[in-house]
This record gives sequence, structure tokens and C-alpha cells, in this order.
Amino acid sequence: MKIIVDGMGGDNAPLQILKGCELAVKQLGAEIIVTGPEEILNKTIEENKIDKTNITVVHAPQIITMDDEPVSVVKAKRDSSMGKALDMLKNGEADAMVSAGNTGALLSGGTLIVKRIKGVKRASLGATLPTKTGYSIIMDSGATIDCRPEYLNQYGLMGSVYMKHMFGLANPTVALANNGTEECKGTELYTQAYQLLRNNPDINFIGNIEGRGVMLGESHVIVADGFTGNLILKSCEGAALYLLGLLKQMLTKNLLSKLAALMLSKNIKQIKSKVDYKEVGGAPLIGTTKPVIKAHGSSDAKAIKNAIRQAMTYASSDIITEITAAIAKTKETDNV
Amino acid sequence: MKIIVDGMGGDNAPLQILKGCELAVKQLGAEIIVTGPEEILNKTIEENKIDKTNITVVHAPQIITMDDEPVSVVKAKRDSSMGKALDMLKNGEADAMVSAGNTGALLSGGTLIVKRIKGVKRASLGATLPTKTGYSIIMDSGATIDCRPEYLNQYGLMGSVYMKHMFGLANPTVALANNGTEECKGTELYTQAYQLLRNNPDINFIGNIEGRGVMLGESHVIVADGFTGNLILKSCEGAALYLLGLLKQMLTKNLLSKLAALMLSKNIKQIKSKVDYKEVGGAPLIGTTKPVIKAHGSSDAKAIKNAIRQAMTYASSDIITEITAAIAKTKETDNV
Repeated sequence: MKIIVDGMGGDNAPLQILKGCELAVKQLGAEIIVTGPEEILNKTIEENKIDKTNITVVHAPQIITMDDEPVSVVKAKRDSSMGKALDMLKNGEADAMVSAGNTGALLSGGTLIVKRIKGVKRASLGATLPTKTGYSIIMDSGATIDCRPEYLNQYGLMGSVYMKHMFGLANPTVALANNGTEECKGTELYTQAYQLLRNNPDINFIGNIEGRGVMLGESHVIVADGFTGNLILKSCEGAALYLLGLLKQMLTKNLLSKLAALMLSKNIKQIKSKVDYKEVGGAPLIGTTKPVIKAHGSSDAKAIKNAIRQAMTYASSDIITEITAAIAKTKETDNV
Repeated sequence: MKIIVDGMGGDNAPLQILKGCELAVKQLGAEIIVTGPEEILNKTIEENKIDKTNITVVHAPQIITMDDEPVSVVKAKRDSSMGKALDMLKNGEADAMVSAGNTGALLSGGTLIVKRIKGVKRASLGATLPTKTGYSIIMDSGATIDCRPEYLNQYGLMGSVYMKHMFGLANPTVALANNGTEECKGTELYTQAYQLLRNNPDINFIGNIEGRGVMLGESHVIVADGFTGNLILKSCEGAALYLLGLLKQMLTKNLLSKLAALMLSKNIKQIKSKVDYKEVGGAPLIGTTKPVIKAHGSSDAKAIKNAIRQAMTYASSDIITEITAAIAKTKETDNV
């Protein structure tokens, strides 16, 4: 399977990106195309003795920075490492794509170059997060700020299909984020979305979920507009970081606590890996005609490798076929 | 100082409420009025040998349940433990009020019986939470779901005054919750609120804050509409609960980890108390003419005592005077 990787995206590009590609070839049997300025990529590969087996460098002279306008990838900087990768993905030269670069640009490119599945109103950036009961996905985590009830209904469907295939769940639960569990709760957007989700025959809708239920794992799919979903996701991240910080303080306070830390070292590692975003991979763009994975901007080699693994699983699954069929069916029903 | 307590509000009423009142008299020197069905309250006091010194029972035959409509406290159930307490507060028979009962009813009663400060567009339910750097308040945490930019601007001001007086902060920072730090981020409500907050001379506005910054303590006041604020607050709570659960698992896994837990017991208590809502008290209603504290529905005696302490501090501070003056000044400026 061919995965195309944006060689210049993220805080640690290109070195950690290239090292991640090397790991993916060795550990996952991936075939990688990396885009970016040839000279820079090849120099980094040579200087760091990265094994080029199954890694092809494709020249793209420009770089999308964090300050670039999202739409620049489509026009002014189409010849960038990200733009080139998106074009090659669109043209079928790879099965999926990974980028740790500018999120806005990747979303623009995903929608305007790779394009949405027919009938999908907005592609969603799903954020998978580890919870008490396994994994959940927040749909949307920031791609679309101003949503309509129909978008939220489609997020529920697309998230459900994604979780089914990526995590082997027979019938993933879908819940609507809200400020209370009662049907009447939330803004007009949410009360209307509730009705659409409840009447959606293709999902296992379990009603509203409060913020507290997100990391307690009360639903596999959490539906929200991008503004709210982003705040939920990052509030959870911040709280987890704070608690891990307290834990660290507790274990390094004095000689006795350091000794206890030694005794617990294996368990501490397990906690850390449970809440480590690097284990999950990246955030999938769902609703596009090809799989695109947004890796975290601060990704290291291991995170890139995991994002590539995620892209491979996504590409080899029936996620896109199933979403295409389900959305087409909905459209037919709508037209009856 | 006289504090009036809704004797029948919350999951553990009336026993834990009455025990909390007893603690508040003993430890804080409070003078307490408790409302509710006389017979039930007196029987509970006698059976549990609660010391009645400085606790006055005031008869109110009805009880607001969790299923009652919020507005019932104003009309059909005005003669309830909550309605009676709100009426007595309004009439100056107490300096502040505490209830662990139906949040919606308390908000309705706060606005319609106790009334808002002149010029305050919406009273806010502030949620104080422990963070990495101290304490922060989320304004609003669920009182008003559909907000206008002016409400958010007033939340910033009111939260700032509250934090200044309750936590002794000279110049509390105020930030707007958002899906990114850039000025242009968020829905129209948020971009408009940003401009109002930035131009508000009475607050120390530091810009947008992402969800991650909430529990990392990046701002003393976090401004959000009630829908979003509620989801932020509860997402943080859920994440903290999950992490504490993992910690517990880690410390009870086997004999070695149990031994380590013993060695760490003092530090573990500190972590727990740091993230314990019972330590903080309750959620203040800010913007009403008298202090009202919403205690957690599951409050035990200790939580009620802390909510009473919070009510005493609120009532003895200049919070309401200062908000009244600041809002009056804004109105004058608006009319120029």
C-alpha cells in the first residue's frame, strides 16, 4: 500500500517525518512517497543515515507555513509539499495521505483538491481519544465552526462508520454533545440535530451526552459542531495534562516518593501510554473521497509512524465505500 | 452573618444539608436559617442529634424536585423550601443563600425573585475550578444557552470582580474560550464578543484561550456562552475523574503497588483534594442583587459547609456593589 507523506509539515519536519516514514516501512511494510524540496529532503536523509528503502522523494519546491492562509494550498502554493501530496492522492498515485502541517490548509485541500464524497455536506476532522472504555471519536473537532443540523447528522453517520471499521465495533454508539441529557437541551442547532439523529436509521443513537461522559467513554461517537468539539477535545487534553503533572509532582517530591515511583514504574508507563495522543495516530479527515490523516503538529517519528498505520487501516477498510452508499441512500430518501 | 439554606435541595437532603449547617455554625460562626417542611426537618435534627444552636428552621411545606419546571419556584411552588428561601433573601432576612436543589429553578428564582442588578442582561452561573496555577471561573457554565455578545462582555466583567474579591487577585486575567487563539476564531458570537471584551476598560483581557488552557490555568476568568461553558467544565471533570480512576487502578494492582500507595498516601490525598469540587464550594450566581450559591446536587455535609463559607465571603465582599457601579458606568457610556 502506498502512503504519501507531506515531508515539510509540522514543527519537527523534515527529520522526524522522514524517521517516521523509515519506521513505517520497517515495522508496517508501508511503501512511502514523501513530498518536499528535493535538496532538503535528500540532505536530511543522507546526514541522518535514513534507510531509503521503499521511500520515494517527490520534488515540491514550496512549503506551507503555519501563517499561510488555508486556501493558499489550492492556489498560490499548490506546488508545496502539501499541495503536491494532495494532487497525487487525488490522481490515484497513492492510497492515503498523512500531513502534520497547517490544519486549515489541509482541510481546504482535502475539500477542494481531493473533494468530498457526493452528498457529504462538510468533511469532518474527527479526533479519536482514549477513554475509560476504549476509544471515542469527536465529530467534528474543528473543521467547520458554523454548522447546520444536517451536518451534525452526517457527522454521526460518518463517525459511526469510521469507528466500526477502525476499531472493529459491531454497532458503535452515537451521542450528541450537550449541556444536559434531556431531549430539549441545547441551542436550536442541537435540538434540531437531536431529531435528525434520533430518526437516522443507520446509526445507534443513544441521546445527549454531557461533557463528563466524554472521557468516561459513554459513547463511541460524540457529535458536535467544530467550535464546540474542539473545545471539548482540548479541555479533556488540558485536564489530562494537568493531572499527569500532579502525578509527576507526587512521584518526585522526596526520597520516599521516588522509591514508590520506582516500584510503580511499569504501571506509570501504562497510564502515560493510555492517554498518549502519539499512540492513537492523527485526526482523520472523514467525508473526503480518499483518506487524509492530520498528524499532530508536534509529531515525532513514532507519532508519524502511527499516523501512517492509521492511514493504511483507513485506506484498506470499506469506510469510504460505506459512507458513499449510506449518503446516497439518504439522498434518495430525501428526494422521495 | 445570616445564611439561608434550602433544606430540601439535593440528593442527600435533608440530613447532609442539616449536618453541613451544623458544621458551618461550629467552624465558621455562621447563623443559619433552614427552610423546608418543619416536621421533616425537626425530626431529622432530633433523630441525628444535630446541634440546633444558631440554626433556625423556617417552615415551607413544598419541595422542588429535579423534574419540576424551573419556573415552578416562582409560581406553583413558591411555598417550597427553595421559593421560601429566595423570598426571605429578597426581603433582607438573610445575607446570602445556598441551595443544592434543581439548578434551573434556582436560576429562575434568582432572576425573577431575587432579581438582577440593574443593567445586568443575564445573571451567570459561574463555575470555579482548581487549575494548575490556582483557581479559575467559567462564566457562564450553563445558565444561559443562547447568548449575545453583550452578555459575554458582562460575564467577563462580573467574573473579574468575583475573582478579585473571592481570591484576592489584584488584576484577574480574562480570556474568551475559543477554538484557536487568533482574533478571527470562533462563531460570529465569539468574534463580536472578542471586540467588546478587548475594548472593555474594566477588565484585563488577554485574548482567546483554547480548551487546553482551561485546567492548565492560563486565565482566571474564562468567558463562554452557557452551552459551551457547561461542556468545557464537565469535559474537564470527566477527564479528571478518568485519570484519578487510572491512578487508583495503578495503586491497587498488586502487593507492590499497594505498598507504594501506602508510601504515597499523604501525596495522594493532596492530589485528590486539589481536584475535589467539595473543597471549592458551589457555583455562584453572579449578577443578582444578593449572593446565591448553587451547591452540587450530590453535596455532602462538608460540601454544604464549604458552600456556606463561600456564601459568607461573597456576602461580606464588595462584589455586588462593584458590579453595580461598573455596569451603571457602562450604561452611561453607552448612552453618550
